Amino acid sequence: MSTTQFDVIVIGGGPGGYVAAIRAAQLKLKVAVVEASQLGGICLNWGCIPTKALLRASEINHLLHNLGAFGFAADNVRFDFDKVIKRSRAVSAQLSGGVAHLLKKHKVTVINGFGRLAGTAGANRKVSVSVEGRETTVLTAPNVIVATGARARVLPGLEPDGKLVWSYREAMVPKAMPRSLLVIGSGAIGVEFASFYRNMGAEVTIVEVADRILPVEDAEISGFARKALEKQGMKILTGAKLGKITKGDNSVTIEVSAGGKTTPITVERVISAVGIVGNVENIGLEGTAIKVERTHITVDPYCRTGEKGVFAIGDIAAPPWLAHKASHEGVMVAELIAGHEVHPISPMNIPGCTYCRPQVASVGLSEEKAKAAGYKIRVGRFPFIGNGKAIAMGEPEGMVKTIFDDATGELLGAHMVGAEVTEMIQGYVIARTGELTDGELKETVFPHPTISETMHEAVLAAYDGALHI
Amino acid sequence: MSTTQFDVIVIGGGPGGYVAAIRAAQLKLKVAVVEASQLGGICLNWGCIPTKALLRASEINHLLHNLGAFGFAADNVRFDFDKVIKRSRAVSAQLSGGVAHLLKKHKVTVINGFGRLAGTAGANRKVSVSVEGRETTVLTAPNVIVATGARARVLPGLEPDGKLVWSYREAMVPKAMPRSLLVIGSGAIGVEFASFYRNMGAEVTIVEVADRILPVEDAEISGFARKALEKQGMKILTGAKLGKITKGDNSVTIEVSAGGKTTPITVERVISAVGIVGNVENIGLEGTAIKVERTHITVDPYCRTGEKGVFAIGDIAAPPWLAHKASHEGVMVAELIAGHEVHPISPMNIPGCTYCRPQVASVGLSEEKAKAAGYKIRVGRFPFIGNGKAIAMGEPEGMVKTIFDDATGELLGAHMVGAEVTEMIQGYVIARTGELTDGELKETVFPHPTISETMHEAVLAAYDGALHI
Repeated sequence: MSTTQFDVIVIGGGPGGYVAAIRAAQLKLKVAVVEASQLGGICLNWGCIPTKALLRASEINHLLHNLGAFGFAADNVRFDFDKVIKRSRAVSAQLSGGVAHLLKKHKVTVINGFGRLAGTAGANRKVSVSVEGRETTVLTAPNVIVATGARARVLPGLEPDGKLVWSYREAMVPKAMPRSLLVIGSGAIGVEFASFYRNMGAEVTIVEVADRILPVEDAEISGFARKALEKQGMKILTGAKLGKITKGDNSVTIEVSAGGKTTPITVERVISAVGIVGNVENIGLEGTAIKVERTHITVDPYCRTGEKGVFAIGDIAAPPWLAHKASHEGVMVAELIAGHEVHPISPMNIPGCTYCRPQVASVGLSEEKAKAAGYKIRVGRFPFIGNGKAIAMGEPEGMVKTIFDDATGELLGAHMVGAEVTEMIQGYVIARTGELTDGELKETVFPHPTISETMHEAVLAAYDGALHI
Repeated sequence: MSTTQFDVIVIGGGPGGYVAAIRAAQLKLKVAVVEASQLGGICLNWGCIPTKALLRASEINHLLHNLGAFGFAADNVRFDFDKVIKRSRAVSAQLSGGVAHLLKKHKVTVINGFGRLAGTAGANRKVSVSVEGRETTVLTAPNVIVATGARARVLPGLEPDGKLVWSYREAMVPKAMPRSLLVIGSGAIGVEFASFYRNMGAEVTIVEVADRILPVEDAEISGFARKALEKQGMKILTGAKLGKITKGDNSVTIEVSAGGKTTPITVERVISAVGIVGNVENIGLEGTAIKVERTHITVDPYCRTGEKGVFAIGDIAAPPWLAHKASHEGVMVAELIAGHEVHPISPMNIPGCTYCRPQVASVGLSEEKAKAAGYKIRVGRFPFIGNGKAIAMGEPEGMVKTIFDDATGELLGAHMVGAEVTEMIQGYVIARTGELTDGELKETVFPHPTISETMHEAVLAAYDGALHI
């Protein structure tokens, strides 16, 4: 076996790619990962992880300005913005280094360069690796996992310019705190940046083309979150369209039409967070049986593409485009290649989280989607204000909503907004994955006093048995 | 039906009693609750709830003294101890008022007084209510739920004296911050007070007669927690015995023998937290078929006592003596009385939480107990240091441990120490209640980035598949 012959080649070292590589290596396969940029991908270097470090800072800033409620006081409360940003970068660097260490420990060959599928005929697929446009090596393996991820979608006229208009990337490493911000798009990324900058003291306006923020969430939860954000002083325009964009020296003016009115909004910086496009270019898909639809590779439930031995996982493949979906697909595909029996991941069992203040988390169907799918449903609701721990923590703003199939007791969906919900949603995900029904959830003893008791009450509420409301 | 005739009489308005009353009322039963003191019982007024408010304050104090790590600074950081205590009392008062409101809303008759079983013959049981020793009314009902709870056990020579020696009660409303404290007993209550006072700045020593702190927890988790507390400057003496006690004007000196040495320890205040005794006195158990063993009423898995129509729930009944066990028993007994089919609660599915810093939470068997029970086990471990969110939050101190039955894949136990674990443990409790095995837990998609991913990794680790270590 030559040093360029592998069992599995993974193109892309993001959370899908590196996890696939580790799992394949655990299963005694010879694995190479080809990564053009940083191990850990966007998630670890420019997404999930560094934003959480930033959001931790903004939570601290919020607390520092509300110390009196808890009996504390301090003078001259301040932050060094540069240190806040540097801490976020250090966290990413630590974890990216951790991935390199893990791959080394598992004897995965890491190759720096841009990977491209260069032939799929015969028993082996070929992957050409190039650096600065020049081919440096060609690897072969019977199995290739394409995990090239995605990048921010760019609106015409709002191309990131490194100064006035930011994508997530510039928004993560600003040179100074902007005084005012316009965030375009209210998905998880947009709302998280809005929450960070607002809690650090900036004036923030969110503009969303849909009729509500966090449009993939249950409408009631979305409405709850909107009210909470507005109470914090955020301005939110939904059903909004962008008009003329005028850039100044240190400001941008955008005409925004919403509710029949057109208003010019002038801000120091604009963050564009309007979705993603898959990185399907120049990776050798042309002329193969691999299908691409709207910048994403078409896959079956086992992440198989149209080309034998070629898999696609993570953001380059089917939605939801979330890191935990990518890494689970990585594990599944590695096990499939190793000959294990595997189960496809149901999108209904993949949770989604937004780490704004208050946090939002959900799994399964929203009330609207459950109704649209024809279910006769039971809905349970429970507010944090009925929960002792939430009150003791000073976090009474939140609610939990459950959607059950009235016919079978299946938990169709669970939706949460409030403190700690991103850490709590896994309980409902476990319930859905284990196909539990209302009976088992009612009987579950949630510890007291925890905010997680609201999860129990929201189940009881769907069956007219909530205790604390 | 006279105004003193009910379907159910509940003696005691703590978390077991008032929940039983609410659930019975939801099921159209006519219910009375007899409570001699405060609605909500010790849990809500002097236990779970007010301590969580205090512990929130101590977490804030800890953060305020570590702001630099996050890029923040403040001068003259201080707290008003009186305000910290008052906030805790206000939280309790709010929730106790909430319980009164809930009972009223459900048309439960609340009677202030000391309830005593006064006759069990015939179709009805009698409950005598007295105020200051004088009988004020007699109620009758076919069903009586005894939920009189428990009180702190008192060691001879360490009776709470309102000044130098405190029980949980005095420890919750001190007039001033003590400079030094000796906490006797390292169960949840002792360790929580130790954590509160240490994080507020006191010198704290814990003395424990067993060979480790938190003796009901898995030994490894107990050891992890001990190291973490010692790192915070706590002194911990295990396998320790108390000798001579000398009280001064504003100090207590206690001779403590541990590890073959006897040392006098002088502190300003002593907190005695050495367990509980059931409130079985003067409640009319004498001469009935109700059995009492070691101050607790003997019950079957349905909380039935030896006397027909008389149930016992919560701390007066079988262990574990936890509020969430009490309230679930309350629901179960109310439903049983209403003629529903009910399932006994398995102690194996009742989680336990300690809200110190770092938090501790567990459910099911410890490694030692699983081995002692004869299981061939698989053990999974995962440290917080391998978790991106924990690092981003600045909370890398923690671990998760899972115990699986090697033969069946049953999750026998799960043990956690670290940030947020009290909110996370419910996922494992749901898994145990739903009788899930390793397969479903491996397939569960935990959201990224959350600390809850450590729960997944600890499952994978038990099967040699952990990804991030």
